[in-house]
Amino acid sequence: MNMKHGSPYGTHRVLEPLGVLPQGAWKIDNSMEIYDNEILIDVSALNIDSASFTQIKSEAHGDEAKVAEIVRGIVAQRGKQHNPVTGSGGMLIGTVAQIGPALVGKCDLKVGDKIATLVSLSLTPLRIDEISKIHLQKDQIEINGQAILFETGLYAKLPDDIDEKLALAILDVAGAPAQTARLVQPGDTVVVIGGGGKSGTLCMYEAKKRAGADGCVIGVSPFEKDCRRMKDLGWADHALQVDATNALALMEAVAEVTDGKMADVVINCVNIPNTEMGSILATRQQGKIYFFSMATSFTAAALGAEGVGKDVEMIVGNGYATGHAEFALGLLRESASLRKLFEQLYV
Amino acid sequence: MNMKHGSPYGTHRVLEPLGVLPQGAWKIDNSMEIYDNEILIDVSALNIDSASFTQIKSEAHGDEAKVAEIVRGIVAQRGKQHNPVTGSGGMLIGTVAQIGPALVGKCDLKVGDKIATLVSLSLTPLRIDEISKIHLQKDQIEINGQAILFETGLYAKLPDDIDEKLALAILDVAGAPAQTARLVQPGDTVVVIGGGGKSGTLCMYEAKKRAGADGCVIGVSPFEKDCRRMKDLGWADHALQVDATNALALMEAVAEVTDGKMADVVINCVNIPNTEMGSILATRQQGKIYFFSMATSFTAAALGAEGVGKDVEMIVGNGYATGHAEFALGLLRESASLRKLFEQLYV
Ligand SMILES: NC(=O)c1ccc[n+]([C@@H]2O[C@H](COP(=O)([O-])OP(=O)(O)OC[C@H]3O[C@@H](n4cnc5c(N)ncnc54)[C@H](OP(=O)(O)O)[C@@H]3O)[C@@H](O)[C@H]2O)c1
Ligand SMILES: NC(=O)c1ccc[n+]([C@@H]2O[C@H](COP(=O)([O-])OP(=O)(O)OC[C@H]3O[C@@H](n4cnc5c(N)ncnc54)[C@H](OP(=O)(O)O)[C@@H]3O)[C@@H](O)[C@H]2O)c1
Repeated sequence: MNMKHGSPYGTHRVLEPLGVLPQGAWKIDNSMEIYDNEILIDVSALNIDSASFTQIKSEAHGDEAKVAEIVRGIVAQRGKQHNPVTGSGGMLIGTVAQIGPALVGKCDLKVGDKIATLVSLSLTPLRIDEISKIHLQKDQIEINGQAILFETGLYAKLPDDIDEKLALAILDVAGAPAQTARLVQPGDTVVVIGGGGKSGTLCMYEAKKRAGADGCVIGVSPFEKDCRRMKDLGWADHALQVDATNALALMEAVAEVTDGKMADVVINCVNIPNTEMGSILATRQQGKIYFFSMATSFTAAALGAEGVGKDVEMIVGNGYATGHAEFALGLLRESASLRKLFEQLYV
Repeated sequence: MNMKHGSPYGTHRVLEPLGVLPQGAWKIDNSMEIYDNEILIDVSALNIDSASFTQIKSEAHGDEAKVAEIVRGIVAQRGKQHNPVTGSGGMLIGTVAQIGPALVGKCDLKVGDKIATLVSLSLTPLRIDEISKIHLQKDQIEINGQAILFETGLYAKLPDDIDEKLALAILDVAGAPAQTARLVQPGDTVVVIGGGGKSGTLCMYEAKKRAGADGCVIGVSPFEKDCRRMKDLGWADHALQVDATNALALMEAVAEVTDGKMADVVINCVNIPNTEMGSILATRQQGKIYFFSMATSFTAAALGAEGVGKDVEMIVGNGYATGHAEFALGLLRESASLRKLFEQLYV
């Protein structure tokens, strides 16, 4: 067998436009014959990014068959699960099927290992043979199919002590709590927008741990059930039932519970567009905003802050942070209530 | 005269969709009868944001009459100069024509003062009566028209010692050198992508000042003339003639001049899309990227960094920083060569 050698970044799979990296490409080659520095994965489930899945579900009017058709259509068109509307992807779990000879000894994997990819589906060559089940509430799709991991592609071996589906759910958003840990200082007032969601719940937990007893953690959701849960979990000093797309209402609600001081740090974990302005108005001058949401518009954030004279540092939610997978899984081992909740929701 | 009172943020002028702030609105009310907390401005010139003007010029195939038609069309449709393709605006200069009675004593302006707005045109009610001259190379358009400044809208009085057109050009990008001053530490290796442009030149100057003799400032442009100018000005330790949309080429060029250490700080000042990945690959692990470019895609940055396992802090280029207008004008007073260059280009 005479295998070809690929670029460590996967540029050899880019079909159009040529010269860009796989994430930026419109279409990549998803043939499953590997290059000598690629890993072939038998895929069992996809976790579709929440901003993407929310858009797909709404386009499909919640119809499962239609969701399947849209997902298949995207992969057929682009060679990857890269939502053309939201620009986002998700991640996958599966079993190592083949390891390119140039990687043997260079990576700690062997054929048969169960792994989750830690790079976005928006750059991962994917072939779907069958969609066996769609979990509309969990953003997860069980499939038969295959995928390719490039030489620089990150992955995590699935742990023995945590259910696969749970690991898939947590690892999808592992960057968010890791960044929260870096950003929040003792005594800080922290607002988590979408604090009742998957990444939001992890951020609420981590924020309370970091901000400590002198700090104040405020969760935001438009839904009563989410607010109730945030209060019940015990990490929210306040749970504000506000629609974050209503910027002035959010500002006023945060002003009220902070005596007008506003937030030192805002963490945006929503799955819908148009919450940049609410995030900006909820932040104090010289405060920080972490936009984890993939529905964030760059220009709306940059020009929105300028428009109201807010000197805030706005950070793009990098999905990767050193050690983020271990960090996120560690939270489940650390907190029994976090684990119980996520087992209820995702297993 | 019985004037109505408006929201300090200008929401009273939003026509659609209701409930958002003016920057996020598709269309705002540009009738020039002021509310009691607004300022009316007789506008003399617009500085169109470079990402926007580049897009408009390309749509118009460089034809002046067509550029005028597109600009008029946007304002007619939206009540503001808010480019629907790039999402960005620009700023304006003009003369104060009327001050709402609720603002008298609250602001330091009087009728007849010459000012520049420091809020984006993407949220500024604007009426164009006549386009008198288009400067294709300067991103500037001379007009007769009027505009409205909201109560929270920032402005700068035009200085006596600096030409109006020059002030307009500089103030448009005032945020970039102010943020550079915050980000760059002594000894840092700094890459300025688009370092031959307007904001890029200011950032090169400020970066060299901050990084100092032990630091290394690297300018990037695909154009030989820009590279030559960067070298001539004396703030560039290296001027790399590379197209920043070619991510791997940029990475290799930066690797070569830094012995593989890559940049501590990357400042992105381009006016074209698809340079996120190049910026990411040019940065070292744990380094910082400041995206000033309005052509930045949020998802391309977030997923691109994840895709190559780069733990970098990516910052959204907030157009505002405390004192940024005075800071930027101060650079012209401080450096004779900076001033000479900008007078050649913009006066
Ligand atoms: N930066 C990255 O690398 C990265 C990686 C993965 C995911 N993400 C993004 O992170 C975001 C959150 O992901 P996730 O998996 O945590 O999503 P999620 O579980 O769906 O959480 C989103 C939360 O936002 C809430 N929400 C909806 N509309 C809202 C509104 N108007 N105001 C306030 N809250 C509202 C949702 O409530 P309901 O569910 O009750 O509607 C939900 O609780 C998504 O945008 C996703 O795309 C980013
Ligand atoms: N964040 C904010 O608040 C804010 C405010 C104002 C402006 N901006 C944005 O900041 C950016 C720069 O504005 P500016 O006024 O400084 O623009 P500018 O003067 O037009 O500078 C852009 C520079 O990028 C260069 N360039 C073009 N293609 C390139 C490539 N492939 N690789 C490397 N460099 C390339 C351009 O070269 P040529 O000119 O020779 O083509 C030019 O020198 C724009 O995107 C603008 O929209 C942001």
